[in-house]
Amino acid sequence: MPVNFIETPASQLLSIPGVRIGVAQAGIRKADRKDLTVFLLDEGSVVAAVFTQNKFCAAPVQVCREHLGQSRRAQQSIRALVINTGNANAGTGQLGLDHAQQTCQAVAERLHIDAEQVLPFSTGVIMESLPVDKLISGLDPAISNASPLHWSQAAQAIMTTDTVAKAFSVAVDVGGNRISVTGISKGAGMIRPNMATMLGFIATDACISSDALQVLAKEVADASFNRITVDGDTSTNDSLTLVATHKAGNAVINSWDSAEASALKSALLEVAQYLAKAIVRDGEGATKFITLEVSGGKTSQECLAVAYSIAHSPLVKTAFFASDPNLGRILAAVGYAGIADLDPTLVDMYLDEVHVATSGARHPAYQEKEGQRVMQQSEITIKVLLGRGAAVQTIWTCDLSHDYVTINADYRS
Amino acid sequence: MPVNFIETPASQLLSIPGVRIGVAQAGIRKADRKDLTVFLLDEGSVVAAVFTQNKFCAAPVQVCREHLGQSRRAQQSIRALVINTGNANAGTGQLGLDHAQQTCQAVAERLHIDAEQVLPFSTGVIMESLPVDKLISGLDPAISNASPLHWSQAAQAIMTTDTVAKAFSVAVDVGGNRISVTGISKGAGMIRPNMATMLGFIATDACISSDALQVLAKEVADASFNRITVDGDTSTNDSLTLVATHKAGNAVINSWDSAEASALKSALLEVAQYLAKAIVRDGEGATKFITLEVSGGKTSQECLAVAYSIAHSPLVKTAFFASDPNLGRILAAVGYAGIADLDPTLVDMYLDEVHVATSGARHPAYQEKEGQRVMQQSEITIKVLLGRGAAVQTIWTCDLSHDYVTINADYRS
Repeated sequence: MPVNFIETPASQLLSIPGVRIGVAQAGIRKADRKDLTVFLLDEGSVVAAVFTQNKFCAAPVQVCREHLGQSRRAQQSIRALVINTGNANAGTGQLGLDHAQQTCQAVAERLHIDAEQVLPFSTGVIMESLPVDKLISGLDPAISNASPLHWSQAAQAIMTTDTVAKAFSVAVDVGGNRISVTGISKGAGMIRPNMATMLGFIATDACISSDALQVLAKEVADASFNRITVDGDTSTNDSLTLVATHKAGNAVINSWDSAEASALKSALLEVAQYLAKAIVRDGEGATKFITLEVSGGKTSQECLAVAYSIAHSPLVKTAFFASDPNLGRILAAVGYAGIADLDPTLVDMYLDEVHVATSGARHPAYQEKEGQRVMQQSEITIKVLLGRGAAVQTIWTCDLSHDYVTINADYRS
Repeated sequence: MPVNFIETPASQLLSIPGVRIGVAQAGIRKADRKDLTVFLLDEGSVVAAVFTQNKFCAAPVQVCREHLGQSRRAQQSIRALVINTGNANAGTGQLGLDHAQQTCQAVAERLHIDAEQVLPFSTGVIMESLPVDKLISGLDPAISNASPLHWSQAAQAIMTTDTVAKAFSVAVDVGGNRISVTGISKGAGMIRPNMATMLGFIATDACISSDALQVLAKEVADASFNRITVDGDTSTNDSLTLVATHKAGNAVINSWDSAEASALKSALLEVAQYLAKAIVRDGEGATKFITLEVSGGKTSQECLAVAYSIAHSPLVKTAFFASDPNLGRILAAVGYAGIADLDPTLVDMYLDEVHVATSGARHPAYQEKEGQRVMQQSEITIKVLLGRGAAVQTIWTCDLSHDYVTINADYRS
């Protein structure tokens, strides 16, 4: 269903009624930058979130899960999010949990709410103690400058090695009500070395029930942030948080079947995919944006296995960096993706529209100069056809350059 | 059981009675280098081999499997191996199979044997047609210069981007008979970009039954070449071939239980591990040799999953390149290794003898200068203790440097 979005440039992000944002310099790692962000949510807002699958998940992730409860319903009581950059508070044991709780308590005291109504997020160095006193000292300035207009400031304040702030808005009509969706994200790798993590925050003024919001959070994450990879490393702190402030006046959305609900879902997905792709475009050292479409699988699972096998191959990634159509590397990555009964003689491959391989071997008409032409582009689509079934999956990744090594080898020093 | 090996420097490799080796310049890819090797095996020799699990396995791998037969017994009829570098003959379809068969036929005609008695091996660019006429034109010079003394020439002739030739010999007493084992290998990544592949060839003059040799081939591969990784890419052409020429006069070994058999097995393993570790030391751009020991797993499988998760993390590998004790990256890689019920609070980590993390968090006594000291070494052991069981596994890997990107981005051009 075509949706009539109004896309908004980052400089003109839409405010979301019910959301105010404050930023401050807390000096958590570096002295001269905004590194603390608070989101203040009006009563009536509903919050849902999905988190990293990493077993070494950070202390704030553990506290978020506790405050959101174990149920599959989104929380209606959350009133604040607090985000620090510079320190991930991961690999920090009980002390890290204490620090995350103290952070929530300090926010709660200032807002006259309970600590359980606060969600904490951290991104930065792993296995170092969070300077919680510095963080707390930044709360008063952050809260006092809170404004509905501070989305782009927040997008900057949550950056680590990101080279550009990532933010996007769309507006959409839902049953006669104009609804706004605005989101920010950070990350330049699925894990950032020290300064770890992908974080995403998306808010809308729509009325969405807590059940429906929780379902949506999973679905949106799976179709956006869970479909990108820079280096295959899964952070200890990854999270995506959705907020619905219930200010828009639309009839409450309880399920995603209706045309109105579908339009809103498309708008949220549009924002999430923009933010996710922005992370790949800003991938550490990335010079190329690569779309990998694997079709003809028996299951989505095996399409994803093939796509990630290609996306994580250092040999494929360095060939793209070099604009070298060394495309046998892609076939090799398909071959070791773990599909036990793969018949290589049914596999075809395209680079954009160029038919490179057919029936598992070089296409007779393929000319290297054609591959060379496509490889020199900054945006490239690889299509792999498995010839086994009807499943299709798409993921987004980038190349592996000298700058990736430089950034990750030199970052902390 | 301690074994009294006599290790031999590469310049003094032991000849193996029953094995003659010839090399030649066939001009397959480059004009000015030896790129063709033949092994001529005396009657009575037994051959076993293990091959890549990649579904896009190369044409010569398919032909080898056919010539070795589908049974689990090693072949007693193989009389020649033929190895070309410069072209992998992979991703080449029916034409590639024809070329591999033609190669065997040409060798067979010159030796007055059947084509099925020849095993072909190729390493080089994937998805390009093998110049089979050039290869065949090199056979006469290669065969005519065959000699028991040409092991080091063969080690050089099978190189692609390797920077050093890899060869090793040991001698061992087995029941009063002195037995020699000599091997060569090539590879500087589990897959080499274009010039793909790990190849290993090990010969001994020992008398070993075909059943026992086949069992050994699998076991030796699992404890050597299957325990190394440079970049996680599995080649289309990987293979390890064992030859036993039955010239040493020892009582035929039918199983590996006796003390004599065990001594011989240790000698073969010594050679295989030397050759495998030599590939890691020569890893593309490698500056550090890293031993990863994961213990306390419930199964060997999960120890390996954790070890490979660490070994394949670009973030871990770049930290080692930078000598940066950014060790939270290792915990993060443990956390996403896929152990569903991992309890991170039971995990400990050591860098050599330095206790870095305990109970899933930074060790209270750990000082970064200690980590820094170890990280600056050229050989480093990481120990991860999972605290779940008694399984232990060790693998070997290297760091990820600027030169890896340079080699793989610039190689083909």
